[in-house]
Amino acid sequence: MSATARLLIECPDARGVVAAVASAVSDSGGNILEADQHTDPDSRRFFMRLEFEPEADRSSFEAAFAPIAEARQMAWRVRWGDTPRRVAILCSRETHCLSDLLWRWQNGDLPGAEVVLIAGNHDTGRALAEAAGAPFHHAPIAHQSAKAEQEAELERLLNEAGAELVVLARYMQVLSAGFCERWRDRVINIHHSFLPAFAGARPYHQAFERGVKLIGASAHYATAELDDGPIIAQRTAPVSHRDTVQDLVRTGRDLERVTLAEAVRLHLQDKVLVSGRRTVVFD
Amino acid sequence: MSATARLLIECPDARGVVAAVASAVSDSGGNILEADQHTDPDSRRFFMRLEFEPEADRSSFEAAFAPIAEARQMAWRVRWGDTPRRVAILCSRETHCLSDLLWRWQNGDLPGAEVVLIAGNHDTGRALAEAAGAPFHHAPIAHQSAKAEQEAELERLLNEAGAELVVLARYMQVLSAGFCERWRDRVINIHHSFLPAFAGARPYHQAFERGVKLIGASAHYATAELDDGPIIAQRTAPVSHRDTVQDLVRTGRDLERVTLAEAVRLHLQDKVLVSGRRTVVFD
Amino acid sequence: MSATARLLIECPDARGVVAAVASAVSDSGGNILEADQHTDPDSRRFFMRLEFEPEADRSSFEAAFAPIAEARQMAWRVRWGDTPRRVAILCSRETHCLSDLLWRWQNGDLPGAEVVLIAGNHDTGRALAEAAGAPFHHAPIAHQSAKAEQEAELERLLNEAGAELVVLARYMQVLSAGFCERWRDRVINIHHSFLPAFAGARPYHQAFERGVKLIGASAHYATAELDDGPIIAQRTAPVSHRDTVQDLVRTGRDLERVTLAEAVRLHLQDKVLVSGRRTVVFD
Amino acid sequence: MSATARLLIECPDARGVVAAVASAVSDSGGNILEADQHTDPDSRRFFMRLEFEPEADRSSFEAAFAPIAEARQMAWRVRWGDTPRRVAILCSRETHCLSDLLWRWQNGDLPGAEVVLIAGNHDTGRALAEAAGAPFHHAPIAHQSAKAEQEAELERLLNEAGAELVVLARYMQVLSAGFCERWRDRVINIHHSFLPAFAGARPYHQAFERGVKLIGASAHYATAELDDGPIIAQRTAPVSHRDTVQDLVRTGRDLERVTLAEAVRLHLQDKVLVSGRRTVVFD
Repeated sequence: MSATARLLIECPDARGVVAAVASAVSDSGGNILEADQHTDPDSRRFFMRLEFEPEADRSSFEAAFAPIAEARQMAWRVRWGDTPRRVAILCSRETHCLSDLLWRWQNGDLPGAEVVLIAGNHDTGRALAEAAGAPFHHAPIAHQSAKAEQEAELERLLNEAGAELVVLARYMQVLSAGFCERWRDRVINIHHSFLPAFAGARPYHQAFERGVKLIGASAHYATAELDDGPIIAQRTAPVSHRDTVQDLVRTGRDLERVTLAEAVRLHLQDKVLVSGRRTVVFD
Repeated sequence: MSATARLLIECPDARGVVAAVASAVSDSGGNILEADQHTDPDSRRFFMRLEFEPEADRSSFEAAFAPIAEARQMAWRVRWGDTPRRVAILCSRETHCLSDLLWRWQNGDLPGAEVVLIAGNHDTGRALAEAAGAPFHHAPIAHQSAKAEQEAELERLLNEAGAELVVLARYMQVLSAGFCERWRDRVINIHHSFLPAFAGARPYHQAFERGVKLIGASAHYATAELDDGPIIAQRTAPVSHRDTVQDLVRTGRDLERVTLAEAVRLHLQDKVLVSGRRTVVFD
Repeated sequence: MSATARLLIECPDARGVVAAVASAVSDSGGNILEADQHTDPDSRRFFMRLEFEPEADRSSFEAAFAPIAEARQMAWRVRWGDTPRRVAILCSRETHCLSDLLWRWQNGDLPGAEVVLIAGNHDTGRALAEAAGAPFHHAPIAHQSAKAEQEAELERLLNEAGAELVVLARYMQVLSAGFCERWRDRVINIHHSFLPAFAGARPYHQAFERGVKLIGASAHYATAELDDGPIIAQRTAPVSHRDTVQDLVRTGRDLERVTLAEAVRLHLQDKVLVSGRRTVVFD
Repeated sequence: MSATARLLIECPDARGVVAAVASAVSDSGGNILEADQHTDPDSRRFFMRLEFEPEADRSSFEAAFAPIAEARQMAWRVRWGDTPRRVAILCSRETHCLSDLLWRWQNGDLPGAEVVLIAGNHDTGRALAEAAGAPFHHAPIAHQSAKAEQEAELERLLNEAGAELVVLARYMQVLSAGFCERWRDRVINIHHSFLPAFAGARPYHQAFERGVKLIGASAHYATAELDDGPIIAQRTAPVSHRDTVQDLVRTGRDLERVTLAEAVRLHLQDKVLVSGRRTVVFD
């Protein structure tokens, strides 16, 4: 784990905020490695991400920074880089995204992650989970009447495992509005289309019917409205009339894997801030 | 102009059709340069494009081919490559697509085209048209009540000019269902989004609001339903939270120019066949 | 396995060859599904690929086709689609390409392949091989003096396994000119650069030094001259000044996996023909 | 013209520099709009770009900032955004890049530019220059003996026009080492290949011979060594065996136009800093 710290800020745009924050970090002995900022042109909200080598310990820094933050009405958080982030992965029958994420995790490609739970409504992910040394929970699709209960059990497991991020690796179940609200900006979904085109079910079939010449994949934070959350990353790939729906599915798998991994990596690096329906991605 | 001929065929899929067509061309002394085919998996319709150096003249070839075509219920057409295609371009206030097409035409980048008419509801295209030596017709936006009359006048001009292809180079006016039907598969529109996302008005504003990470452009044949015709070509380009709507517009212009020119070139080479809501593009 | 057959032809370009081949297939009762052709403009060599549903059995077809082929000086081969292709994979310490290929194979993404041997100069591939049920051969890097002997042993294993295709999945050892000649057009290598840029060792370091804004991966048939064989597939991805060499390595892994898999799939579908230093890829 | 100011800094990496610079700008009454920074991992050089709305006038700001800069051994410059940049364009027989740049300039796509001189060794650019209202200088290719003299005359014209940036829009003449040195980091060239592949003459022919599956374009600062300067932007596009050299040239034109325009726009926005053989591009 890297020993850097990351400071994330959102506040009303105002003169002097960059200087105030940079000075606070410097005054605490910190050496700024990266600084990114953005002002949303509509809301006039200011977003900032600083990565720095800290000298002070976490609580001293937070104590020193709190009054500066208060004076400027900042929403802020700081992450000390030596704490891994606890990640849960939910999957279904198709495991290409799950196996890809696990491969990356095991090969150092998801720095800062610790996979603490894998759960699926099919059992197909179990072998992959076990090979990666991560606990697997199998929750077969419940009767409609038992859905709420099943989600509550899932949430209990997530909390028990101390999950900080939930990755929906082609998890085909719809999460309740309440769940999405409680885990706001902490659930990343991969949808297998170029959103907002082809939201909902069977996007590759929809794409084939419409005769598009590119297909896409979109990684976004899950919200109560299906496939409508803030988009983190999107990719497209060319297709042609020669491609059947099955070809779209196959080509799409590569898009989905890479797009989801990109979004998860950005989140783990604290490079994604949510600004209404949009994301600020400091890549 | 190249001296090659192009034979385009659509018929029910059946054994022996490739051999029958290839033999017919060979028997007429033709030398096949390119042969492409496709069978739509749903409709079982067969599509073929042959490009060949002909020996026979056009009418002899057609007379010899007609019985073969009839026996297999073919819809077919043949184009002798030494006849340029008469192209009309409709534009509006924004001229980036018009100027791009004219530049390509003058620089040999649209082989087989002859621009015979340019019409616009703003006068901004006139100077470009005149510099390119093409006649310009200015038709200011009419009162709602006069729209039908204006379209009729436009259609009269197109017919008078002998237009075989109409390119909507960011022509922002909606064409009537009747017009679209009469000019079916001969009107190419460029829509400034990745269809079917953001059909209709102000797609860059819609894209900005939704916070997409890629924008797109789609060239398609115009049909009665707006932005719903068979897609010929699509492209996307990455954008970020730093991009304003104006940045999307600027980036999009480059996408639009290249995507429209690609679709027009494919059409001029007789490489696009329409199959229901989809296109077969033999590129 | 699909029950289709594939006929691959190379011969001098001449009038009537498409008709002759298509008729031969039809006369044998075959139903042509796909037909692609290409004439190299320099060498005037003609290349063709036909995929068809055969009615005759293989030997009858070959007997009937041989005189047609002889008359036109064709180099040709036909593959009956119900025979899987025997594939060997060679790897080294880095296993991202190996694990990706095995994942695809197990998930039906490499139709027509049977992995019959995996060999590596490190032991890191063993667990992956065993999980996939493929035999693993470990051959540690030999003293320079024993290299020829080791290659001979490897070749013996490949022959014993009946390998028809050898995939170098980031196999970092140079194969001898003799080996490359004997396995001509049957060894696919992935090089981690956009060839011909950065051939040879440490291409990501070279790319970093040069300050390129895109990195690439190239899949090609191995020839006696290092990284100089006919290219089958290439891809690029954007990078920036923020990327360290390690970032290029990480981004590059995704390019390598997808580019190699694409080339292997095209080869398995008999869609790649070699034309001097270039390939004809009927995709 | 925007009324923002841009401050560009290069100095040894050290603790507190971000805070010092941000405070200096704030103390002068400036409102920071964008701040980007980068530390080269090899040289430990620190690069920074700040865009701000100034309150002080230029000379007051410079007077206040000079001691801060001196204390940290900064190379720095500040550009007040209301001064347009004087741009010269050199071209040759092919005018696709010239016409594209002029179109962009006239349509507000190159904010901050003023085209003050166009020069070419063919006369083909004259009509374009005149239509755009820019002076054109025709300098036919000289005898080898007169080359130095001709370059001197060109340089005299550039100086007379007050050119701050020279764009080589497919200018096929080699500039002397002395010229490149005097105009260091102020001459942008477009090379029609994916550098470092196919440097030098006839890159599309080289690409065709090699059988690559992607072609590229590279915009870079010109240096004494041909096609070896720091790269600003690169793009690639897919090609296939069907493409002749002429097809590569045509496809390449679109790449060249967009890649060169992107590099020029980035330079005009002061977003490109040179770090040895590499560029830092704050896009």
